[in-house]
Parts: sequence; C-alpha cells; structure tokens
Amino acid sequence: MLAAVSELLVEGGYDSVTVDAVAERSSVHRATVYRRWADVGGLLADVLAAAAGDDWHPPDTGSLRGDLRAVNLEVQAALTGESPITTALIAASFRSPAAAEALRSFWDGRFERCAVLVRRAVERGELREPVDHRELLVAATAPVYFEALLLRRPGDPDRWAERAARDYVG
Amino acid sequence: MLAAVSELLVEGGYDSVTVDAVAERSSVHRATVYRRWADVGGLLADVLAAAAGDDWHPPDTGSLRGDLRAVNLEVQAALTGESPITTALIAASFRSPAAAEALRSFWDGRFERCAVLVRRAVERGELREPVDHRELLVAATAPVYFEALLLRRPGDPDRWAERAARDYVG
Repeated sequence: MLAAVSELLVEGGYDSVTVDAVAERSSVHRATVYRRWADVGGLLADVLAAAAGDDWHPPDTGSLRGDLRAVNLEVQAALTGESPITTALIAASFRSPAAAEALRSFWDGRFERCAVLVRRAVERGELREPVDHRELLVAATAPVYFEALLLRRPGDPDRWAERAARDYVG
Repeated sequence: MLAAVSELLVEGGYDSVTVDAVAERSSVHRATVYRRWADVGGLLADVLAAAAGDDWHPPDTGSLRGDLRAVNLEVQAALTGESPITTALIAASFRSPAAAEALRSFWDGRFERCAVLVRRAVERGELREPVDHRELLVAATAPVYFEALLLRRPGDPDRWAERAARDYVG
C-alpha cells in the first residue's frame, strides 16, 4: 500500500492521495486501508517513515568535506531525482499537519545519526569540539533545499558542502 | 482585489483562492477579475509582486552582521508573522507554476538589490573581493527558511546572520 501512496503522491500530489485511490492502486480492500490509517496524513507519515529507512547511516568517506558532499548529493537526489518523493511530501506538509510532523521527525532522526559524522571529524582532527552537529548539518544542507525546492534551479551541493566543511573547521 | 487574494490565501490556502471568491471578497464583478487575470496563478504572481514592493532596499545598519541580521529578521517575520503571506505563496508554488516563477523572480530581485549591502561591507573593509553576494545571502537566509518552513520550529535568525558574516569575512 505504501508503494501505491508514493506513486500517487509523485504523480498527482496531495489531492490524488485518497483512501479510494490507494485501495484501487494497491488492490487492497477500502476497509483494510481505513482500518490501518485513519486519514491521509497518517498514510503520508508512514510513507516517509518507510522512505527514511531504519538502516540509513551517514556516509563515511574519510573526510568531513567528503561526508557532507555525500549528504548533500543525497538531499539533491531526493529533491530532484526521477521520483522526487521528498518534494511531494514537503508539498503535502503544507496541507497535512501529520505530514509536517513526519517530516520534522525524519529530519530530527537524520540529524541525530549524523552526530557520528561530526565525531569522526573531531577524531581525525578536522574539527575542534564543541561542535553543534545539528547546526553544521543545517548549514551544509539548507542552501541545497533552498535552491532545489524554492528557487527550483540546479544548485551546487558540492560547493555548499565545501563551504560548511571549511567554515566549521577551526 | 490583491488584498482579497492575500486574505483568502492566508486564511484557506491555495484551494480557497478562486475567481469567484476573489470577486465576492473584493466586491468586484467576476468578469472584471477574469479580464485581468486568466487564472489563479496570475493572481498569485501579482500578489507577490505587490508584496515584494518596488521600493524595498536592503537594511543599512553600519555593519555586515547587522545588515544580515536585519534581513534574516525580515525573512523570519514573513514566514511566521501574523499574516504569513510568504509561506502561503510558497505552499501555493508547489501547485501553481506561475506562483513558483513569481517567487523565483522575487528572490532574484532581492538578491540583486542586496549587492549594495555587500559592496558597503567591502568599502568598510569587512569583506575582501571577490564576494558572490548571492551566495552570501543564500548562506545567511537558507537556514532561516529551512527552520521556519520545513522544521516549523522557532529558529535562530540572528545566529545564522552572525555565522554568515563571520564565515565570509577574510
């Protein structure tokens, strides 16, 4: 069913995700869809949780700049790739508080997992503590979101990763 | 009529902005609304152009950090204030290409006008050329958009302004 929700969302946006459409697309009975999700917001939240993946770990390239670059390329791909599910969920978050809350949890989880990325950089001597890993990650990724999502232009994820790595060093 | 569009947008989002609703709210005949705007996207674009204001100039506080701080507080207010028209337009931009294009033009215009902010900082000796004024502005403001718009949490516009001012100096 979650695959059906993702497809509908990417194809037609929030308006196209209805319990009826999900039931039809996934060949599951409407009552079953209703039993599992009270509303569309819940459906979206579960899609995001599935997309986030419990097994995601930050990249480990051997340098802070390389790690941030890999994170930024993932963000860019999620926003502009062939199946921009993240963009569709962000668009939906303006209309569904459940989707907005799911996105917030998604980012909080990602930021927490990236603490190890910063710790490794400290161990390598690239960063000096204290470093706010969340702030560093927002500094590196926020411009990528801004360019891809709001300016809707090809951005420069690599440049922003390089800047953040440089600015937070020493 | 533009005031009516803004009100409807902030109150009920994109779905509530219809030619009929605009005509009723502004006490203007439907045919007149239609004559001026072919579609809702055109309406939104004009609202944004009016909100942008031809007379906007970047703040001039006497320091780069102060100027960026003032810009960030403006951004924060536009996204979280009592009448968050910018947030409503950004939400609409995911559903109306005309609104998306209007937003892009809006930001391009703001970035261009901020060139003088950077030039003044260079003249004061705070920055060394060459400085990409657009990149500096994105670095300072993108985290504010990210926190207010996507994380939907109280952000720290002042801190991001301070970081950008510090990182781009020398």
